[in-house]
Amino acid sequence: MAMALALQDARLCIVGLGLMGGSLAMALRGRVRQVVAQDIDRAVLNAAIRQGVIDEIGPPDEADIVVLAVPVGRMLNLIPNLELRPGALVIDLGSTKSRVCEALDRLPEQVIAVGGHPLCGLAENGFQNAIPTLYHGARFVLCETARTTPDARSLAESLVVACGAQVLWMERERHDALTALTSHVPHLLNFALMRLAMEVAADEPALYELAAGGFDGATRLARTAEPMITGMFTTNAAHIREMTTRLRAHLDELEVLLDDPAHLPDALRPVVEARRQYTTHYQERLIT
Amino acid sequence: MAMALALQDARLCIVGLGLMGGSLAMALRGRVRQVVAQDIDRAVLNAAIRQGVIDEIGPPDEADIVVLAVPVGRMLNLIPNLELRPGALVIDLGSTKSRVCEALDRLPEQVIAVGGHPLCGLAENGFQNAIPTLYHGARFVLCETARTTPDARSLAESLVVACGAQVLWMERERHDALTALTSHVPHLLNFALMRLAMEVAADEPALYELAAGGFDGATRLARTAEPMITGMFTTNAAHIREMTTRLRAHLDELEVLLDDPAHLPDALRPVVEARRQYTTHYQERLIT
Repeated sequence: MAMALALQDARLCIVGLGLMGGSLAMALRGRVRQVVAQDIDRAVLNAAIRQGVIDEIGPPDEADIVVLAVPVGRMLNLIPNLELRPGALVIDLGSTKSRVCEALDRLPEQVIAVGGHPLCGLAENGFQNAIPTLYHGARFVLCETARTTPDARSLAESLVVACGAQVLWMERERHDALTALTSHVPHLLNFALMRLAMEVAADEPALYELAAGGFDGATRLARTAEPMITGMFTTNAAHIREMTTRLRAHLDELEVLLDDPAHLPDALRPVVEARRQYTTHYQERLIT
Repeated sequence: MAMALALQDARLCIVGLGLMGGSLAMALRGRVRQVVAQDIDRAVLNAAIRQGVIDEIGPPDEADIVVLAVPVGRMLNLIPNLELRPGALVIDLGSTKSRVCEALDRLPEQVIAVGGHPLCGLAENGFQNAIPTLYHGARFVLCETARTTPDARSLAESLVVACGAQVLWMERERHDALTALTSHVPHLLNFALMRLAMEVAADEPALYELAAGGFDGATRLARTAEPMITGMFTTNAAHIREMTTRLRAHLDELEVLLDDPAHLPDALRPVVEARRQYTTHYQERLIT
């Protein structure tokens, strides 16, 4: 049996050099033997070489570790067609995990694979927004697949730690059920609100003059590139629908209280309290 | 007829020294003859004096300009009981305008009044978050009342310009209809989502481990102090309900498409485009 590969000896190939892939390259350059990349945009690859973010343009088939950093929809087409060397580790950065892990399950037995989701995405995606500290302090979910060996676990964990993130092993379905609430429904709501704003603004051009920080925060996820959202929504539709159904129930309850000053405060106060506690927790997490 | 008062000669009284009132005091100190303030929290007033943000603690009854910077609910109780000198200008900073302007309409005939809403609130409210540049570049809605004379218009506009904001005159009902979409529904959605998160986290403590930027942005308005939200919701419930009804229609349409990769991209792309255009517009506005 071959010796387990150490991260610093690995040739790393990142497929998709956007915000996540580009930032990962910046974080791992110098911590692996070599960083190569592929992207559909040749200008991005050229910029990455000029800026010293990657060593060279290169395919996955010669890499020891292959990081898939493309939208989930493209990932599902990409995984069955990967050419990989025996023993190579495949890890993806997709926003949903069940469908992607199913595809990883079906990889040939001579490769190893772990599903991944680093929780540090931004609506401002693309390589031009990549920064070396994007992963610092972030939770990085890892999911077991049928191709996850002890070596795969260990190498994937080394990669997460090397880019400054924190490992969070989680079962794929549970990840998708919970991120439906923490990420996918927020995206859906941002899109729905922006669509409504477009409809209202058609008759009331002054609308956007009245939009400030609240509107910005409640619609900013609608800037995300469409293939990312399509991949996210289509591969987690059932969990998203379950969460929107439950969200509508809360919306119903709050709407009844909108003009009820006797009962509205009691409904709002625990939410404010919980959100402020979360803020403290979230900020502490970013600092640590 | 008396000479119209110039802003620099005015004694200004700010009632409520939170984020908005405190930042206004910081922005106007030195641009008016004197800044005095009232607040229910004596510690805040003492801090404001120590920091040189206000000249002294003082009541509205000796001021030339009275700025009401308390939550809308409290404002409605406060306005009928104000003791004011003849000719004084009253301006409020409330998040809804119809009910407040109705209260201003009923002020004694010897005072003048303008409704106001500076569009630069933050979820991180309170005097401790006040900054002198909060109003810079922000739109500051002004609404006519039955007590709005040409002098009132002119003095209110001077105050807006002096704090670095831009005047946007608007009819009160139209303000409330449009801010229901741009501000109040975002607040409501943030509360509904945070409530759902609390419900899910009760069974799944790992939920918050999976929450990152998207969740933060989609729930941050739920940190806003409860009296602000209660005032906002209870005085604009009809417009908010109209907008949530329309929002639910958009949510329905998008939900149908969630697992339809053939049609979802066409529904998303124009929204991404509109939101990116808005981003550009919004950022340019903040810079100018």
